[in-house]
Amino acid sequence: SGKKVLIVYAHQEPKSFNGSLLKIAVEELTKQGCSVTVSDLYAMQFEPRATRNDIVGRLHNPEAFNYGVETWEAYKRGGLSKDLVEEQKKVQEADLLIFQFPLFWFNMPAILKGWMDRVLVQGFAYDLSKAYDGGLLQDKLSLFSFTTGGTKEKYAIRGDIRYLLWPMQHGIMHFCGVKVLEPHICYAPEKVSEEKRKEMLTAWSQRLKTLWKEEPIDCSPEWYFK
Amino acid sequence: SGKKVLIVYAHQEPKSFNGSLLKIAVEELTKQGCSVTVSDLYAMQFEPRATRNDIVGRLHNPEAFNYGVETWEAYKRGGLSKDLVEEQKKVQEADLLIFQFPLFWFNMPAILKGWMDRVLVQGFAYDLSKAYDGGLLQDKLSLFSFTTGGTKEKYAIRGDIRYLLWPMQHGIMHFCGVKVLEPHICYAPEKVSEEKRKEMLTAWSQRLKTLWKEEPIDCSPEWYFK
Repeated sequence: SGKKVLIVYAHQEPKSFNGSLLKIAVEELTKQGCSVTVSDLYAMQFEPRATRNDIVGRLHNPEAFNYGVETWEAYKRGGLSKDLVEEQKKVQEADLLIFQFPLFWFNMPAILKGWMDRVLVQGFAYDLSKAYDGGLLQDKLSLFSFTTGGTKEKYAIRGDIRYLLWPMQHGIMHFCGVKVLEPHICYAPEKVSEEKRKEMLTAWSQRLKTLWKEEPIDCSPEWYFK
Repeated sequence: SGKKVLIVYAHQEPKSFNGSLLKIAVEELTKQGCSVTVSDLYAMQFEPRATRNDIVGRLHNPEAFNYGVETWEAYKRGGLSKDLVEEQKKVQEADLLIFQFPLFWFNMPAILKGWMDRVLVQGFAYDLSKAYDGGLLQDKLSLFSFTTGGTKEKYAIRGDIRYLLWPMQHGIMHFCGVKVLEPHICYAPEKVSEEKRKEMLTAWSQRLKTLWKEEPIDCSPEWYFK
């Protein structure tokens, strides 16, 4: 209780299974006394493209646009666009980041990838030699909660699902110094019975009840590829 | 010669190192007699968000928007938005797809992920039980060519760079039945000498000269995680 949670949510339809998972998380965490903020990316029409528009005013080097350099410089002088500053404020205040989305192509949807690309800029999320355990977003937890199109059996045939978590959990969160909780995966909600779907929703609700007692995973290559 | 190549390019700045890699590919492949098409995603202001706007006319189920179902149905009745139809036409005609981009967060930039999410819809790129070696984009090759911010040494510390290729090469290309050539990785062009950068450009040009003789990789978990 008293904890702050940011849910970054990437589904177009409130009536979807992802929408239900979001609703449950907001309800359960609020009930616990947490303060919950939702970034509903499609509803916000969040911009996923990393462009010159993310920098207010003059560029550091207008001769050759370098997104990483420009956003780093803009961050330092307080010159990032308003939508990014707002998201960074939410991240800064949060104890826990939950990413709720349907898996698209072994990965997060582009709109959520755009959130990562644009919000987690150098200076804010990491810096020169400040990465991984030295990343700038220390003392925060993250949790990737997603649905799949394919069944658990289909995924298992082609290599462990943990393989696809590496770029998201390790490459992004761990890099920024954010600790990672076990992912929450709902396999193929569109292909199972209504009863099974209800069980999945209950399981998410149950997990959230004891979430704050969970230990982060050991975000090493061994966890993913053992 | 006579081959058709589609280069999907995701960098904002023509004067960038990625811009130089693109230029070299266009020049070398054209010189070989290939017909080269470039989708310059930032210049096109390509839309990365998967929304209702991708479907022209009435929805299959307006009560609850499901992007996968709606784009599948729209594909079958010829009702996808114009920008997607144009990209699909380019893919259909190509013998080789080259993806040229700077690595953002162990992954492709959101604008390129959006291209994957929106262009490779069910019915066009795969279908019910038509995936992997049965995927619908048979007899095509693909090649991921990208630059990194970090040095090769930095990447090696935290696990093989092949780990992050799994979702892109296996999860997308292999899933659609597209064969995958060895990736082309230019490490940290911003951190090396001008001479080293020139060597990297020459190496790309050289590789392209014998590209059509290359054998695709064995896109199995072993290639990535051995």
